[in-house]
Amino acid sequence: MSTRTDETHDPQLHSWLASANAPETDFPIQNLPFGRFRRDPAAPLRIGTAIGDQVLDLEQAGLIATQDMAQLMQAPPGERAALRWVISRTLRAGSSAQTRLRQALLPQSAVHMALPCEIGDYTDFYAGIHHARAVGALLRPETPLLPNYKWLPIGYHGRASSIDASPSRVRRPWGQRRGPDADAPPGFKPSARVDYELELGWFVARGNARGEPIPMAEAESHLFGVVLFNDWSARDIQGWEAQPLGPFLGKSFASTVSPWIVTLEALAPFRLPALRPQGDPQPLPYLDSPANRAAGAFDVQLEVVLQTAAMRAAGHPGDRLSASNASDSYWTAAQLLAHHASNGCNLRAGDLLGTGTLSGPRPEQGGSLLELSQGGQRRLKLSNGEERSFLEDGDCVLLRGHCVRPGFRRIGLGTCVGTIEAAVPPTAAG
Amino acid sequence: MSTRTDETHDPQLHSWLASANAPETDFPIQNLPFGRFRRDPAAPLRIGTAIGDQVLDLEQAGLIATQDMAQLMQAPPGERAALRWVISRTLRAGSSAQTRLRQALLPQSAVHMALPCEIGDYTDFYAGIHHARAVGALLRPETPLLPNYKWLPIGYHGRASSIDASPSRVRRPWGQRRGPDADAPPGFKPSARVDYELELGWFVARGNARGEPIPMAEAESHLFGVVLFNDWSARDIQGWEAQPLGPFLGKSFASTVSPWIVTLEALAPFRLPALRPQGDPQPLPYLDSPANRAAGAFDVQLEVVLQTAAMRAAGHPGDRLSASNASDSYWTAAQLLAHHASNGCNLRAGDLLGTGTLSGPRPEQGGSLLELSQGGQRRLKLSNGEERSFLEDGDCVLLRGHCVRPGFRRIGLGTCVGTIEAAVPPTAAG
Repeated sequence: MSTRTDETHDPQLHSWLASANAPETDFPIQNLPFGRFRRDPAAPLRIGTAIGDQVLDLEQAGLIATQDMAQLMQAPPGERAALRWVISRTLRAGSSAQTRLRQALLPQSAVHMALPCEIGDYTDFYAGIHHARAVGALLRPETPLLPNYKWLPIGYHGRASSIDASPSRVRRPWGQRRGPDADAPPGFKPSARVDYELELGWFVARGNARGEPIPMAEAESHLFGVVLFNDWSARDIQGWEAQPLGPFLGKSFASTVSPWIVTLEALAPFRLPALRPQGDPQPLPYLDSPANRAAGAFDVQLEVVLQTAAMRAAGHPGDRLSASNASDSYWTAAQLLAHHASNGCNLRAGDLLGTGTLSGPRPEQGGSLLELSQGGQRRLKLSNGEERSFLEDGDCVLLRGHCVRPGFRRIGLGTCVGTIEAAVPPTAAG
Repeated sequence: MSTRTDETHDPQLHSWLASANAPETDFPIQNLPFGRFRRDPAAPLRIGTAIGDQVLDLEQAGLIATQDMAQLMQAPPGERAALRWVISRTLRAGSSAQTRLRQALLPQSAVHMALPCEIGDYTDFYAGIHHARAVGALLRPETPLLPNYKWLPIGYHGRASSIDASPSRVRRPWGQRRGPDADAPPGFKPSARVDYELELGWFVARGNARGEPIPMAEAESHLFGVVLFNDWSARDIQGWEAQPLGPFLGKSFASTVSPWIVTLEALAPFRLPALRPQGDPQPLPYLDSPANRAAGAFDVQLEVVLQTAAMRAAGHPGDRLSASNASDSYWTAAQLLAHHASNGCNLRAGDLLGTGTLSGPRPEQGGSLLELSQGGQRRLKLSNGEERSFLEDGDCVLLRGHCVRPGFRRIGLGTCVGTIEAAVPPTAAG
């Protein structure tokens, strides 16, 4: 597991790029995430790293020789660590590469970020136990958690085609919803319950052949890194369609990732034990390893900000709706991956594993409006006097994540932003 | 909708290739399906059409200029029809192209078939009402069909990476299954309830932009054609994991398609009205069109054959386990596609839509062993004295499909074949 820190994590490291040394930046020289950008909307995709408020074009800088992120992801862990070390060295204060690299830098505000890689398959898990319990309590007050929850990471296949990179514009979906009573026909209308879900998304680095599971001890070597992930959800569509086979059109209209993959190497200082609460079953052997118990979890602080159209017009930065921590997840990233491959399912470089909504243990830490509004029964009062149970057209949702630990430099995941647009007009909806 | 027949469907048409005129062939000149093959396992993929017992290499024959099936699929329907016409003309008895084309022909027995295209996303539906009712009755005797079933095509996202082309070798998956009683921990073992599912798979021809639904009237112009589809299922894994979010590892270990896509144009003579039983609700407007009512269904006869290892050793061709017809599906292919895009979900060329298990109305027409064995409660007696509730190692499952109609030439979908292999040994399963 990538839990060993090295000189690339040294908090004393500074970059010759001033903005990388600003205390509030998500992208100091200790981070070095990977992403894909275009210099203009029609230009080809290029691989870069975020450093301060700039993007370093890695090929132009002479640091990589490919624009194929899947190829870069599949490099053996040793090669990945070596690349990180080289990038770190060239960006350090005093590096002789400084003059040469200046021309490979572009302001982040001037480039167009794309999906960090082609996503072959996307799987969404349900690893946030506080979310599972809160949502379960709305549907089944007597048994919020089903008997399987603490034995296996519940997951389902998601829709890969409709995932895009932040900033995203998300059109309110049409869909069927339950009629007003059991005898009434369902309606087909724009969703009235569009919601966000605060998740992390793990990108698979190396895959496996079909029929060959990945043992827990090797699971993390198959992970590349993490992004913020908004699993937009239409609760009324989901509520009518999802039995017996699970969520479908209530989810597949859109999902959004933050554009920078923060690598496992960058996260090494921010690992925590993955311990089960007293009385909970221990993971079965295929989901267990000493390393996972010791440091399988990730200490990533998360928050959700909502900026309504009225706030935007008034220059208001938005209200924080909730804050939570990824380490509250019941299952670790390694367990999600090992479970996924345990039946022989073949994973591929670039596959995305969503964690499921990462709510905190307290009600105000719900990672979705479904939780914060208690299934739409209460309205949240916003600081400008507006109220919300679910998202309105023009609402902009920002997810943020960062890692802090005494003795280490703070790193961030950037932002995952999406704005709700009005539904297609009825005539075009067919 | 592609329901108009033309000269390419003329039953009097004969080919200069004798095997295409054999009465029992699936691939007479009236069929002309598309697939991808390799001349040897390491050779590049090439697009061909099946004709009799041969493959015609379409680029070598000068009939196409690409090896990118997605590009061919996205051609406007008029261009697709024109290509069909040109291929038909060159293969007809008396064609001057005969001598030139001889060298572009390869025996089907000598080539290696691959997936007919890259599958971006795969969705599995539940459109076979007799299957849904029979399986529902096992789980919920009082309400076999849930209230949403007759209002929308139930579907879920499936795993694209583990789909391969027939003939397939399918390794028995390991997985968690429920403990013997409510207090017992679950086990992690090789599945003891591996099953097949008899389905059709529809390939998407042209996609749509995210946020832009596809109206019912245009749905069929977004479909390319159909294959046989075996949605291998591990019932014990599925039974423990699938609540509340649907099937996951019980399905994702493998799915298998027949290698030849039979086009919508080839199916034109075999269309039937899509009528609702008396008393059932009419489809909502976004799932309805006059053309769909008139001829939305496909008259495809389906069958499942099981050949055990002992049968194979004895030269026994196998037992037919069931027969059914695709026109018994409650939802048409156009409805599956229009529903899928109704929330703005973007489909892409090469996406695969599984119909769900296509069982017939009678119990002996179940399209899975789950149905035929009544949830594993009874054992099927095979003609050689063996018995089965679920599949054993070495069992080979063959799906077949064909279309017949008086006044037209019979066409077939080929075969979808897969053999169950023993589970990975315990030490390797981690």
